Order: sequence, then structure tokens, then C-alpha cells
Amino acid sequence: MKKRSTVLGIDIGGTNTVYGFVNNETEVCFSEQIPTHGSLPISDLLDRLQSGVAKFFDQNPHLELDGIGIGAPNGNYYTGMIQNPPNLSWGNVNIISEMNKRFGCKVKITNDANAAALGEKHYGIAKNMNDFIVITLGTGLGSGIFSSGRLLYGHDGFAGEMGHMPIKYGGRLCNCGNRGCLESYVSASGIRNTIREFLNQDPKNEFLIDVYGEKIDGGMLDDAFDSGNQIARKIYEYTGEKLGQGLAQAATLLSPEAFIFYGGFSNAGDRILKFAKESMNQNLINDHSERIRLLPSGLPQGKAGILGAASLILFD
Amino acid sequence: MKKRSTVLGIDIGGTNTVYGFVNNETEVCFSEQIPTHGSLPISDLLDRLQSGVAKFFDQNPHLELDGIGIGAPNGNYYTGMIQNPPNLSWGNVNIISEMNKRFGCKVKITNDANAAALGEKHYGIAKNMNDFIVITLGTGLGSGIFSSGRLLYGHDGFAGEMGHMPIKYGGRLCNCGNRGCLESYVSASGIRNTIREFLNQDPKNEFLIDVYGEKIDGGMLDDAFDSGNQIARKIYEYTGEKLGQGLAQAATLLSPEAFIFYGGFSNAGDRILKFAKESMNQNLINDHSERIRLLPSGLPQGKAGILGAASLILFD
Repeated sequence: MKKRSTVLGIDIGGTNTVYGFVNNETEVCFSEQIPTHGSLPISDLLDRLQSGVAKFFDQNPHLELDGIGIGAPNGNYYTGMIQNPPNLSWGNVNIISEMNKRFGCKVKITNDANAAALGEKHYGIAKNMNDFIVITLGTGLGSGIFSSGRLLYGHDGFAGEMGHMPIKYGGRLCNCGNRGCLESYVSASGIRNTIREFLNQDPKNEFLIDVYGEKIDGGMLDDAFDSGNQIARKIYEYTGEKLGQGLAQAATLLSPEAFIFYGGFSNAGDRILKFAKESMNQNLINDHSERIRLLPSGLPQGKAGILGAASLILFD
Repeated sequence: MKKRSTVLGIDIGGTNTVYGFVNNETEVCFSEQIPTHGSLPISDLLDRLQSGVAKFFDQNPHLELDGIGIGAPNGNYYTGMIQNPPNLSWGNVNIISEMNKRFGCKVKITNDANAAALGEKHYGIAKNMNDFIVITLGTGLGSGIFSSGRLLYGHDGFAGEMGHMPIKYGGRLCNCGNRGCLESYVSASGIRNTIREFLNQDPKNEFLIDVYGEKIDGGMLDDAFDSGNQIARKIYEYTGEKLGQGLAQAATLLSPEAFIFYGGFSNAGDRILKFAKESMNQNLINDHSERIRLLPSGLPQGKAGILGAASLILFD
């Protein structure tokens, strides 16, 4: 029996890792989510991945592994390394070489936001676009840039670090050590910063006390916003204003057709994007404004990462 | 006798227009500068260009015109239009069609900063670079972006408007109508704004009174800086700080190997770039800093524009 080939797509995140097998360039035929356990050595994650993959091929003897694509925080397409990922204790990992040893097939890597952008281009809402920017909104803010139909890597593979684009000099201290980065305002942790600032000004506000915790509950904020809570509205208005400033900077340089939003916090959708669009248009030169669309991703949460990672191999 | 083909490169500027003929892909065999006269209809400029070109071919009967490349303010590669150029009263001009009627050969256009970037890539300091950004410093600030060896145009041909990237929200009013654009701080007119602000704070300062005029004399500022004038130093320090903030924004998105500076005000060179580099590095995430070079253009003033415009045809 001739075996059919399949590609493994892996999306490594700060908390969870999802992986799946992609056939016929359009379909995830199996996918699973496992905890990343970023405080343990990466071999722990790779051991668990390896046994999950082995089990899959035991159950699917008609398939064989053709290659592996990986999206990971600080994954570098050129060096094949995961380089000092934030929130993971791994330091610098030569993931290509590690995976080659274990699986003996072609392996490619890029960062998680680039993988999401590849997913949107090959399987998602950006299929017919050549110039667009995917923004991943989660704990942090990442971005993947397509220009003239190609993903931009930059000189050293680190293009697209939009989360660390300064939007306010001398502004908030960011996890990266600099001040005023977009991510320090627009991300789950950025919104947490905003709530803390609001709480400093209004320490007895019950809604702010309720919503401020180790992790911010986006669903709770969304519900409060929808029921007309003015504080929730102010939080999203402030976040949207800052996001729009970052979008204006990127749009002025790159003139994309659309920004596409993906990731946990993008569920807030128009609640934030409406303010972001106003703020972006205010900060664009006249010829550009109203020409750039802000769109939610059409891909199911988790799938864009797998599909995008796999497309590193499938569309090589 | 078989004629040799030559390409006409035209660099239209706010004040002057330079044009020249490029042979063998490396040589400008004739060039001339004529006033643009931007307050007159564009036909005035094109009439003078046409008679200059006719005269050249009369004197060089062994050559024939193979094509025309144009760099112009707000020149759009996709539409073939010059679209509402600032400081020129032309509105929207279909320059490709105008030139076709007059010359009957292939014509291509891009904006002046993109032409300078093409000049650096094919004939200048960026010959061996794939990821770099050329910044033209003159009355305004323009930029042309190469990524992975290709010039970026964006969805609508307006990528690279770095001069209008907001670096300070609610900051200085820019000629474009927005506030806080990089150009309103870093350009001849931006430096004039800075001198006016300094003069408001210190209205009797003789150096500031001397240097503040309808046009700023860059040479006078350079000389004062070199002789240790503290006000000149402050002006360049402030300008460099703002430039570095803009460079940090662009570098975070695009991760280029180098920024290359071209145009009248780039003669200030290290006097401004030293401060710009410090400010850029302060605003970059750690992995990037010290990796990006700031370089003066190696091409003679005026030549990069002609060569870059011609390369639209020669390297098509």
C-alpha cells in the first residue's frame, strides 16, 4: 500500500501547545492541545509531542510524515532557533536540530505570529490579499506582515515585532525592558496595566476590583461592555486608541489592505476595533484613511497556528 | 549603423528637476538640472524636458531612447500618476500617459524616495544588501524600503511614507494636516520648526535670530556645531533624538540591516546620526540594538535619483 504523506503543524504557546496533521493542503485531520510547561526543559515538551505523534501514526498506518512546521515565540526562520522566548525558561534552543534527531524529516520554524499570518494567507480570510498584517492578541501582541504576497522576515528574521514598537516615549515599562511599547497597552497584560492605573485613580471602584486579577477575564469585560458599563467602555476605548496609534504607524510604512486580528483577546472584536479604527484614521495621512480594513480572523482559535506552521512545509 | 539604446532617468523635486541618460547600467553619460517651476502647469516642465532630450539626441545620433523612469513626489508605481504632490500645484497628473504622448516609449514612475532606494540598491552602498531603508532628508522626509531584495510598494503603492509616521500623538502640526509626524521634526522644515520653538523660549538669542529664515542654512548650522556652539548642538541633538525614535519604529517592524541617508540635509551626517543612533538603540528591544547601521549615501547628490529612476526600466 502506498502511504499518503501528511505534515505536522505545531503551534507552541506560552501556556499551551497545539499540534495537528494537515493533508491535502486544506484539512486538519487530527489535532490536540497539550500544556507547554515552559518552566521545565524543552525536552519535556518534545517527549510528550513525540509520543503523541507516534500514537497518531500507529492509529493511521496509511499515513507517513512528510515534514514538520513549527510556530513558536521568538522562533527564527533563518537560524532555526527558538531564541530566549519570553515566559518560557528555555534560553536558546536549536529546535530544528532537536526535531531532526527525533523525527528525521524536514523541519522549519517561524515565530507564532508569522505562522498565524501564513495560516490566514493559505487557508483564511487573507487568501486573496497580498498586503496585510496579522496581529495576534493574547498575553502579548505579535504580528506577521505580508507584503506583495510574501511574508517579511527582515535582515535577521526578526521583522514584525509590532508589539515592541514604541507608541509613547517614556511610557509604560514593558516586559522587554523598554518603555511605551504597543504591547504594554494592547494585550491581556496591557489591559491589566490599564485596569491597575484606573484602580489607582479610583481605588474603591467595585467593578475594577472585581475584574483586576492575576489574569484578566476578557469575557467578563466583554459582558460588562455589552451591558453598558462605562468603566468597561473606558478600558476598551483607551486600549483601542492605543491600538489605532500602532496601526497608523505600521500602515504609514507598509500601506496594507487590512489588519487581521487573531488570538484570545481578539474575541473582544468590534468593542475594541471600532475605537482602534477611529484612532488609526485620525493618525493616517488623508489619502490612506478609510482604505484599510480591520478584520477578525475567520479561522477557529488554534487552527490558524497549526495550518500556518504546516504551510511552512506545504507551500515551501 | 546600429544605434545603442539608452534610458532617461528623471528625478522631479520640489525646487529642481534633474535628468540624465544611463548606459551600460552603470553610467550617467549626461545630466542636467532645470528648475521645476511647480507653480506653473506641468506641461511647462515637460516642454522644457522634451526640448532638452531632443537636443541630446541631436548631439548623440548613435543613441536611441529605450525607456523613461521617473521619480517624483507622490509618484505612484501602480497608477502611473503623480497624485497631489505637496509643494507643487499640479493636482493629479497621469504622467505615464503625458510622457507616452511625447516620447512614445515605455515609461515607469515611482516616488522620489523609492527612486533613491533603487539607486542605492543597483549602483550605491546597498548593492549587497537585501533589507535596508533609504531616508531622503530635504524639505521633507521620504523613505524607500527594501525587504528581501525587493522594493515595498504596499497595497496601493503608498508604502514607505515614513515622514508621516506619527512619533508624538498631539505633537507638531505637519503640512499633511496631522500632528506629530516624523517629518515635522526631522527635515529642513522640521528643523525650522525646532529653531522657532527655541526662539520662542529665548527670543533675544543672536545665533537663533541669525539662523532662522525662510529657508534654514544647513551649512551654517553644521559650521556652528563644529565650532562648539551649544545651541546648534541642542538643535541637532533634539533632531537626532526624534529621528532615532522614528528609526526605532521602522526597525522594530522591518528589521533592516541599515538605514541609508540621502538628500540635502543628510550632509549634516554624524552630527545628527550620532544622536539618532543613541535614541534608536534606546528604543529597540535588546536583541536588535547595535545591529542596525546608519550610513550616509555614497552616491553624488542628484545622481541617486537619476540612476534609481532609470533602474525602473533597466532592472524591470
